[in-house]
Order: sequence, then structure tokens, then C-alpha cells
Amino acid sequence: MAGSTFGTLFRVTTAGESHGPGNVCIVDGCPPGMELSAEDLIPDLQRRKPGQSRIVSPRKEDDTPEILSGVFEGRTTGTPIAILIRNEDQRSQDYGDIKDKYRPGHADYTFDAKFGLRDYRGGGRSSARETTVRVAAAAIAKKLLRLTHGIEVVGYVDQVGELRATGIKPEEVTLEQVEANPVRCPDADMAAKMEELITDVRKRQDSIGGASTIVATNVPAGWGEPVFDKLKADLGKAMFSLPAVMGVEYGQGFGVATARGTEHCDTFVPDADKAPPIGTDTNRHGGMLGGISSGLPIVLRCAVKPTSSIPQDRPTVDRNGKPTTIATRGRHDPCLLPRFVPMGEAMMALVLADHMLRQRAIHTADQSG
Amino acid sequence: MAGSTFGTLFRVTTAGESHGPGNVCIVDGCPPGMELSAEDLIPDLQRRKPGQSRIVSPRKEDDTPEILSGVFEGRTTGTPIAILIRNEDQRSQDYGDIKDKYRPGHADYTFDAKFGLRDYRGGGRSSARETTVRVAAAAIAKKLLRLTHGIEVVGYVDQVGELRATGIKPEEVTLEQVEANPVRCPDADMAAKMEELITDVRKRQDSIGGASTIVATNVPAGWGEPVFDKLKADLGKAMFSLPAVMGVEYGQGFGVATARGTEHCDTFVPDADKAPPIGTDTNRHGGMLGGISSGLPIVLRCAVKPTSSIPQDRPTVDRNGKPTTIATRGRHDPCLLPRFVPMGEAMMALVLADHMLRQRAIHTADQSG
Amino acid sequence: MAGSTFGTLFRVTTAGESHGPGNVCIVDGCPPGMELSAEDLIPDLQRRKPGQSRIVSPRKEDDTPEILSGVFEGRTTGTPIAILIRNEDQRSQDYGDIKDKYRPGHADYTFDAKFGLRDYRGGGRSSARETTVRVAAAAIAKKLLRLTHGIEVVGYVDQVGELRATGIKPEEVTLEQVEANPVRCPDADMAAKMEELITDVRKRQDSIGGASTIVATNVPAGWGEPVFDKLKADLGKAMFSLPAVMGVEYGQGFGVATARGTEHCDTFVPDADKAPPIGTDTNRHGGMLGGISSGLPIVLRCAVKPTSSIPQDRPTVDRNGKPTTIATRGRHDPCLLPRFVPMGEAMMALVLADHMLRQRAIHTADQSG
Amino acid sequence: MAGSTFGTLFRVTTAGESHGPGNVCIVDGCPPGMELSAEDLIPDLQRRKPGQSRIVSPRKEDDTPEILSGVFEGRTTGTPIAILIRNEDQRSQDYGDIKDKYRPGHADYTFDAKFGLRDYRGGGRSSARETTVRVAAAAIAKKLLRLTHGIEVVGYVDQVGELRATGIKPEEVTLEQVEANPVRCPDADMAAKMEELITDVRKRQDSIGGASTIVATNVPAGWGEPVFDKLKADLGKAMFSLPAVMGVEYGQGFGVATARGTEHCDTFVPDADKAPPIGTDTNRHGGMLGGISSGLPIVLRCAVKPTSSIPQDRPTVDRNGKPTTIATRGRHDPCLLPRFVPMGEAMMALVLADHMLRQRAIHTADQSG
Repeated sequence: MAGSTFGTLFRVTTAGESHGPGNVCIVDGCPPGMELSAEDLIPDLQRRKPGQSRIVSPRKEDDTPEILSGVFEGRTTGTPIAILIRNEDQRSQDYGDIKDKYRPGHADYTFDAKFGLRDYRGGGRSSARETTVRVAAAAIAKKLLRLTHGIEVVGYVDQVGELRATGIKPEEVTLEQVEANPVRCPDADMAAKMEELITDVRKRQDSIGGASTIVATNVPAGWGEPVFDKLKADLGKAMFSLPAVMGVEYGQGFGVATARGTEHCDTFVPDADKAPPIGTDTNRHGGMLGGISSGLPIVLRCAVKPTSSIPQDRPTVDRNGKPTTIATRGRHDPCLLPRFVPMGEAMMALVLADHMLRQRAIHTADQSG
Repeated sequence: MAGSTFGTLFRVTTAGESHGPGNVCIVDGCPPGMELSAEDLIPDLQRRKPGQSRIVSPRKEDDTPEILSGVFEGRTTGTPIAILIRNEDQRSQDYGDIKDKYRPGHADYTFDAKFGLRDYRGGGRSSARETTVRVAAAAIAKKLLRLTHGIEVVGYVDQVGELRATGIKPEEVTLEQVEANPVRCPDADMAAKMEELITDVRKRQDSIGGASTIVATNVPAGWGEPVFDKLKADLGKAMFSLPAVMGVEYGQGFGVATARGTEHCDTFVPDADKAPPIGTDTNRHGGMLGGISSGLPIVLRCAVKPTSSIPQDRPTVDRNGKPTTIATRGRHDPCLLPRFVPMGEAMMALVLADHMLRQRAIHTADQSG
Repeated sequence: MAGSTFGTLFRVTTAGESHGPGNVCIVDGCPPGMELSAEDLIPDLQRRKPGQSRIVSPRKEDDTPEILSGVFEGRTTGTPIAILIRNEDQRSQDYGDIKDKYRPGHADYTFDAKFGLRDYRGGGRSSARETTVRVAAAAIAKKLLRLTHGIEVVGYVDQVGELRATGIKPEEVTLEQVEANPVRCPDADMAAKMEELITDVRKRQDSIGGASTIVATNVPAGWGEPVFDKLKADLGKAMFSLPAVMGVEYGQGFGVATARGTEHCDTFVPDADKAPPIGTDTNRHGGMLGGISSGLPIVLRCAVKPTSSIPQDRPTVDRNGKPTTIATRGRHDPCLLPRFVPMGEAMMALVLADHMLRQRAIHTADQSG
Repeated sequence: MAGSTFGTLFRVTTAGESHGPGNVCIVDGCPPGMELSAEDLIPDLQRRKPGQSRIVSPRKEDDTPEILSGVFEGRTTGTPIAILIRNEDQRSQDYGDIKDKYRPGHADYTFDAKFGLRDYRGGGRSSARETTVRVAAAAIAKKLLRLTHGIEVVGYVDQVGELRATGIKPEEVTLEQVEANPVRCPDADMAAKMEELITDVRKRQDSIGGASTIVATNVPAGWGEPVFDKLKADLGKAMFSLPAVMGVEYGQGFGVATARGTEHCDTFVPDADKAPPIGTDTNRHGGMLGGISSGLPIVLRCAVKPTSSIPQDRPTVDRNGKPTTIATRGRHDPCLLPRFVPMGEAMMALVLADHMLRQRAIHTADQSG
């Protein structure tokens, strides 16, 4: 229980189900004095929501956020910021079938095993609908990171099924490139092929997996706490807390399994652009060494499974373990990746904002006596 | 700061450096009445320590644990259990060179960037020496899991460089199979090849990466907390908190990126051996759905980078950013994987013990009125 | 920062200001299956709100709670319960004067010192308005405690100024007795005198302090965690987190300072009504020994200062430290005590619900092997 | 469970029993670069230990602390500092009688009720012996507070039984005055009377209660977090986490119950010595308004009960609830107050160090854009 709070100093608590009255988050710990309005939350909510293009779910969600507290005369006050996003397009009738049957790949069964009952409308609490307020909370974190350190957090799709875009340089990708196509793959040629593949999969009443890379640039060296709260540990938790993420890797990632030390380790070199003036010539380490940021871009990659909601009849069991079949006929994404991008960015931004504040508490010499 | 505590109810706090007086952990939250003595901690400490075979570091560490509290007349009392493991084989002179130079791939630079100074003997706090007390703490967790639920946590090496053992069935691997060879790969033929490869790499004064799978069997359905403290999220954090881990994946892992929904989703089937009598026919989901345990074995896999300590001269910079060279001539593992196994098991056991207690707090119907 | 969350397993996070859009709480960790509706929250909200009688503030607050999540088909689901209470009667014009002047006894100055700016409408975040959602959250805790253990949490006023009701037996006070008069003092004669005194103080444009006792009956022996999370420690934090509380004492309280050990210590006696069949003959210890519940009623008493809002001109300084005068002409309680009672009960209930769940995690013998 | 950790950023975890091998604490979050050695911990440990004078317990405890980690070349490194204090004078035979009988006023019964078993040697985990490592940890906090802000935390005894020293000005008391007599009452005449009273009580084989005031000077305005982590809330928890504390009050304390608002509220006045140049003319508020420090001295007072260990036969029950008698013949303090002083100071220092770091994370304008 009590697993709906994330972060130590920049702390987000969420509540809400897919088909209840709405989703709420409380962002506690945002420093005071930062300009903020509901407008700041809209762009990422727009990127996250369904119905943006023909390759994502045609559901309509308005996702209009209301800031209920913590902002006064256009600035944050340092007190908790509550954000409410009401659920509007709730066609509960779409979901009646899943009351007693367990959808393959979904959390229906495990929620019942855990709680003994569940809100079976949509995925209830296990629905990705819950991530709306994470994205809203993270818009605040992103703004804070940008204003204080010029940090940009940008994600993109680099794989859909067998199609993998291998030539992208993570640290050079811009939001504009990502938003230039509905797949959110900055390689335009590959994006076109991916879109075609997703369309094909949807026609076959199937779904498809993929991968997304999330990058943060301008993170100073020194963030992250040994030994359990390493930046890579907290980012790992953050990413795996998102629905459908089955793998996370940093820098060279699983490629290290076949690497020799002499080829993996990046070489420290002078870098006048940094303070201290030290960098590495390459970034196979993904921007963290010993779990602490190195000043190089933070680069991680998430494997995202194919949507479990598929409009074909499939075998399953009911609550009593009796065999039956089920098809999920709602309006669902054939590929989660395009809408995953803002969610992945959100979780990275929340972790970075938290560690920024944690590092602030330490980064001063005045106790040296 | 304050990143040395892990867990909510079964909570471990560690302290210690590689070349200071010793490492300590405090295990808070172990239920009372469980038989426990220092003997229980020895086997996994033996598995973790260097000097076990010719393919791991020849350093000698005695790793004799002393239980300082929390056990009375051979049983846990419910109060915190402190464990002290003194450092004995501290050849500090091996490490003098790294005071002012940054070793590639190590945390020397990032610790300096974070703290402004560092204990430069060995890796100090960033050394894997710190994991001794995690392994000791986890021996308690393992015992608790075994006694209460028959849970077994077993890890093994399935990849060293290009050599990957693909035929192993994770849920069938036994501790005996793992311990049958120094590589800790239960596929004996592959283990022999891996050993040869590691020996070759060491001769070339290089190091090599690999991967390890960690499995927990008999975990009941229902453990893990939506939405941030999902079991997969806490396990992800746990694994990434270990040194050198660059990737973590569950079940089908990164393979989901190329999968279709119809092929990825495991099918729910009746399973009379379980309570409730429900299972899945396959385990591509890795034992968790919606981040909550499904009753199937928990299966995860970690990518571990090649040891950064290599006894060759390599270019780097000093504290002032001035180019220089460094070789790490200490006694180091050419391949971290064999000794990673007990560390990976340890972190999984700590997470499971914590979530077992968290689930105990909820799993009762007496509030239903 | 991040100080708006309370509790480990039964965890409440709040947000909201007195004159913003509303106050919100998220109750995370309530076990599933408990009947719950917004109706359950109303009675205590009614007791807390202003305008109930002529001795409390005539402000009107409707305090209609909306449950936004965590309840499905009339039962809790185990997922977080968000509650929204909108602010309705916001006469901001009443407060314009305090933008630049510091009201004596209020948090205006310390909020400015902390945050550099503040929401100066009403007390903003420091207003007791914030406690509405604590009271709503605690109504859930109270119901849980009642259903699972028959625990009742009841508070009452035992002192207003010089008037102290000394003959009340804490463990025998009922909610009905407390609600029988507007002062919430179960001694009817004393209540009448207290009401007269408060009326007199109000006419003099002054305010007056007092004290309130909060009692929990039927708490089983064994709740509370050594050494920092003792029940008395967590209750102490809980009470001191309420506005205006300047002192907290348990059982004999400050009376222990003049006591001898032979007279203070309660004697253990057989008590067939308890399990185990052990009690004490008296309850000077206030229901906790070593900070852990003893099975006797939990009894604590809070000293509450006189309202700082007084409609007389008083000297103060402005933001620049320049002397000036201020009068607080809003609609304020001349004595906080009557409305403090449900707030004190609320905080006790939140602590007990949390420790009930914490004890559930430990109270089983199945690890004894 | 898991109640042995205290603090958010400056975090202390303790373990240990009175008659086990020793007590340990891990101080996580101390900033790097501060000079520190075991010598720094000795003075307060000396003040806490028994055997200092004829009015405290004649037990001998050597209390030699060993720093096991977190300090390198005489300075803190920012990594956790583990401190071990071994138990030496363990006359377990003194305590055999309490295995099956419950000592009145002690935690024997409640520990059994909680855990089902207990370390019955001495008080085990409930013994005040556990506070040794809190005092050691707090010596680090005190040094940090002194070096960074010139903060001094000083406590003293102001009441023993009926003898109350009422003329002491809390903010003017010095450590030297406190240490000038064995009672630790800075009023020398009163101290002599108190000593006489304690001696008399001891001769009568009884014990006596009292009260202690703890003061922190030079705490800047702005520390403490609304709404649950108010400075007064965290200090309240801290004090009540100490054994034998039955009441805590700030500033005017329980005196507010009889006060009128016009007389209680301190008046804001210009104060050129402060930044911002604002203070109050008096300090009835105890240095906190809205739970946030005001720049005035933090002043709190604790009521401490008489020692429960009394060498007279007293009625009680055994584990089965059967009536019997018990006398506690060990070497115990007839009055806890003199040795309480360093414990109270310790807990205040730990809270202040934590909130200092929390405020550092917020107190900057660079997010104002």
C-alpha cells in the first residue's frame, strides 16, 4: 500500500482511475517564485492524449488541467500544487465484459489477487489514464529544470517492431524533430515506414511493441546519491513504474554484455565547456558513472510491449479459473510508443528535479569550517 | 544525500568504504521469532567474496559478519539487526595513483564533482565492497521468504561476451547447478567455454561484460503496489543500484520491441497448483502484470559491464582536467558476472521481503464490515 | 519542502489554501473492501466547520466533499482515495491589509522568511482551512479503526482560560456528551460557564486559549514502533502539526514532574477482558509504555493558544521591518477549542490507522519456522 | 516495524540493545568537507553516561565510539558515517528476574504484546542505553549547525519534583553554567536543593520526576515545512521518541490555556541584528510561528517521569497475568533529568540539522526565471 508517492524533495502523489470522476496529483516541493499557470501543462498533456493521429487510439480525452493550489498571482508559492484532470469521455459500456474475465497481459487478475476486488471499468487504476497527472506534474519539473540549469528532456521512438532507427544521435534530437511526425521518430524516413507498419498491424487487429530513447542534456555532473538512490536506480524505478515497460538500458545498454573493458570505457578528456572542464570523448556510459551524473547527456532506452488490448477473441479464464474467451473491443493504440514518449520524458524530469533539489542541499562548502 | 536506505517495511541501511574500518548494515523490520545466527549469513558472503577461483579477483577478504543487535537466544526480536563486517585485506598502497587521476569508467570523477572530495582508497564508497553487507542483509530476507512462503531466489550467469546460454529454463535452475562451476552458469558446457574466455581476456589485460538472470519462485500473486512501487519498479531500482548494471529486463525483455500483441501476451489457464487456481501457459511477462506479481516465477535479467579496472595504461585526465594516463594494477575481476550473481539475488530478496510485509498489511478482509 | 505527506502505510497528502480553488487530500493505503461514501465524511466536516454556533466564527463554509477516486460500487478498492473540498465563501477583500503587514502570532512573517513570497489571502497555506481535508481523511481512518477493532476516538474541551473541568473520566466520554453543547465540554455545567466566558472575551474584542483531551479506546496492546516511531512520538508529531497547539501531554502529563516513582507507575493487574489478560489498575501512563500501546485507553491533552486574529489595532511591522499597526477584522473564532476537537481526533485517528497497518505486517508467527 | 530511522536529509538509523554486543548508528546525509573525528563525539557521550556523580546511576559505561565510515583524512566525505559503541559493563545477572515478570512503568509488557518475545536483559531495545548512539550522531549535527550558522543547542534541568527554577532566561544559559553542577540546573542555589532532594529520594528507595528545557539560539527564520513537517511537529516527535518524556511544550506552553490573545501574541519589532531586520519583543511563541522558525530562540520544555526502576518490592503480574511482586535492584538513576539533558539536546540538534538541509534545497531565487 501507499505506493502512489514518488520522490524525496520534489514529490508527486497521484490518485485516480480511468473511469472515475478524475485524476489528481499533488506536487509537493516545487520551489517558490517560479512562474506557472495551467497553460504550462497543456503542451505535454496534448502530446500524451489519445486521438492525435490515426495511429493512436481514437478516444477523445480533453485533459484540461485545473490547478487547485500552490500558485498565487502567477507564481509558485512553495506549497503543494494540486492538479485535477477530470475524466470526460467515459464509455463504460465498452468495458462491461471484463468484469469477470481476465484480459491477457493486463493487470485485471493481479489486482484481484492483490485487493480481492477491482474497479473493472477500463483498467481502473492500472490504466495508462493515470499517467495524465504524471505528465502534468512533470511539466512543472521540466520548467524548473530548464529555468535553473537549461536542462532539456526529450524522448523519441527509435524502434517499432523490426524497424529500428540506428543512426540517431540522442544528444542532438530536438522536440521539433520529434513532433514532426505522428510516430515521434526523428528519422523521418524511418518514421514513415513505422507509421505504415503500425497501420498494417492495426488492420490485422493486432498490436506491436517498440522502444523509446529518453535524453536529458545539460545535467550537471554530481547528481544522484550513493548507494541506493543512484540516479540510474531512481531513473530505472521511474521508467519501470510506467505501464508496459519491460526493459530499461543506459548508454551502451545490453551491448555491454559483449563488450571488452578496453572498448566500453569512455575516455576522460579536457572539455572547456564544462565546469569542471572535464568530459568524456564518447558516451557509452549514458551520462552516469557510479550512478552519479557525469555532465554528459543522460541517455536511456525503454522496451515497451505491444498493447495488450487486442480486438480479437483470445482464450483466457474467468474469476473462478474457468476457461472462456475475451476480445478487447475498446478504442486502443495498436502501438504504445508514440504516446509513451511524453510519459518517459515525464518520469525522467521528475527524477531529475528531485535530485537537483537533493544536490542543492549538499553543494556548498560552508560546513568546511 | 541520505541515499543509503532501501525499503519501506523491510528496510536496509548501509555504510562503509572499501578501505575504511569496515562495512555495516542495519536491517530494520525483520519480523520477530525467526531463528538466526551469523552462520546464516556466511554462505552468500562466501559466494560474493573474491578469491574463490582463478577467474575472479585474487584479493582475500575474510568477510566474517558480526551480528551486533536484534537477535536474542537465537531468534530475531523484531528490533533492528546490525551487522558489521570489518575490512581486513586493505593494501592501500595499491591505490595511491588514483588520488589525483580519474580512472575511466569509475566513479572517481563523479564523486569529486558531487562531494568536492572523496575517499580515494579503492573505490571508497563506490567500491563493490559495499555490497558485502547488502548480501548479509539479504541472507536474512532469503530465510524469511523461504520460511514463510517457500520462496527461492536463485541467480546465474547466462552470458559472457559473445557466449550466451540460451537453453536454460529459469524456473528450473537450482543453487546446486549454479555453484557447480566457477562461472555460475548452470549450462556446464557453456560454463567451460565462458571460463576459457574469461581466462583469455585476463591474459590480454582486458575485462569482459556479460549478463545474469535472477529468478524467484513461489512468489504469490498480488505483491507490488500501484503505481510507483510496482514490483517491477522496485526491482528495477534494486538492480540498477548495483555497480556496473547497465540494463535490466523482465520476461521477454527487449524482445517485446519486435513482438506482436498476439504473440507476446501469455494466456491465462486454470492451474490447480495455485491459489487462486489460475496461471499462465507461458511466462513472457516475467511474473508480473501491471507491476504486481502473477504467481509465475519472477524472472529478470541484468546486463553487467566489463570491469573498469584494467591493468593497461589508458589515457585520462587528472583533477584539473590535464591529460595523463592511468593503469589500475590492483587485483580485480576480469569479469564481474560470477560474483554478481549473489548480489543480484540479494537485491531481489530485499525487494520481495519488503513487499511481502507490505502485502501482509493489506491482505485481510476484516475491514469489509 | 515536501512536508505535506503524513504516515507510512496509511498515508495522507494534502494541498490547498484558504482562498484558492479548494483543498485536496489523497489517502493512500486504505485497505480494500470497506464500505465508503462521501456521506461518511460529512459528520466530522460539519463538526469542524465555522458557523455552527455563536461562539465560533460566523464564516460559512459548505465543505461538501467529493470523492474523486479509490471507491467503486460503494467500497474502497485499495487504491488512493482523493477528496476535493472546494472553497466557497472567499471574501478576499477582508484580507487585503495583510499583504504587507505581519499579523502578530500568525505565520505571515515566517512564510515570507521561508519562501520569499506568500499567498496572503487569509492565512493561505497556514490557515486552519487546510485541516478540512485532514478531517475528511480521518473520517476514513476512524471508520477503519471502528470496523476492525471497535476503536473509538473522541475528543473534548476540558479547559477554556481559567475554567478547567477536572472531574471528567476520559475513557467514559461519549460523542453524544461532547456534541451536547457548543463548547464540546462533556461537563455540562462547566460548558455553560465556558460558553459565557468565550462570549465575554469576544465582546472585549479579544480571544482566549484552552485545552482539549483526545482519547482512543479499544486500541490493542502492541502498536507503535521502537525507537523513533513510538506511538507517543507519532501522536506528538500529529498533534503539533495542528495550528495553535503549544503543548502536548500524555496521561499524567506535566504532573509527572512532581511525582515520585512509587506514585506514578501504574500497577499491572489481571484483566480478563483483555487479550492477553493483563491491564493496569490506573492509567497515569496514558495508554503507552515504551511508546507502545498497553491496551489501556490512549489519552493525550493539547494546549491550544488563543486565536491570533483579534479585531483590535495592535503594533507590528511591515515587510521592510517598519513599525505600523494592524487589526484582523475577519470573522474569526474567539476561542479555537470547540472546533479543535474534531481536528485533534482526526490526527489521532490517522496515526492509529497507520500503526494498525504497520502492526499487521508483523503480527504473525509464521516466520518462526 | 522499520521505526529506527529518523530524518529526511540528515538521517539517523540506530540499532542495539542494552546488553547485546553494542549500539550502532548510521548518520546518512552529513555534508562533505567538515572536520570530524571520534574526539568530537566524546564530550556529549561523557555527559550522557552513568556514573558521573552520586545522583546518577553508578553503572560504568565506557562509551568509546568508533567511527567506521564516512570520514577520510579527518573530514566527512558526504557518505554515511557509521558509529559503533560497544557495551562493556553488562551484568546480565542483575536482570534475570524480569524474564517472566513485568516491571511497572517499563516496556516489558508492551514489547511482549508487540513482538511475542523480547530481549529481557536490561530493557533490551527499550533501554535508554540506545540513546548513546543518538547522542553520538547528534554531536555531528551540533558541529554542523555551529559551523554553518553559529547555532548552539543547550539544555538544562529546571524542575525536580516540587523544586522549579523559574527565573532562568533560556536564551542566556551557557553550557558552562549547565555543567557547573551535577543536576545540570544553571540556577546554582536551586541546583543544590535539587541535588539534596534527589539524594533524599534515593535513600527512600524511590525515584522522582522533573522537567528540562532545551534551547537553540541563532536558528534563522524560515526553517520547518508546512503542514505536517512543521519544526514544532518534528521537534515534538523527536522529544517524545525519548524514553520517559510525558509532555512537551513550546514557549508559553500550557500557560496559553489561560491566556488571552492580547497578552499571548508577541509583537513584531524592528531588529537590526537579524536578516531580515525583524524580531519580536518577547518570545512566548517559543521561536516558531506556523511551525516555522521565527529567528527567535527555539525553546521547548519536556516533562520527564520518575525512573520506573525502583528497588522496592511492588505488585505486578507475570507473563501469564498471574499476580506477583518485583523489585528492580540494578543500578539506576533516582532522577533521570541530569542525564536527560544531553539526550534532549541531541534530538533537537538532529531535527535542526535535517531542516537546515531541507531549507537549503529551497532557499534560492534562481527558479524565478
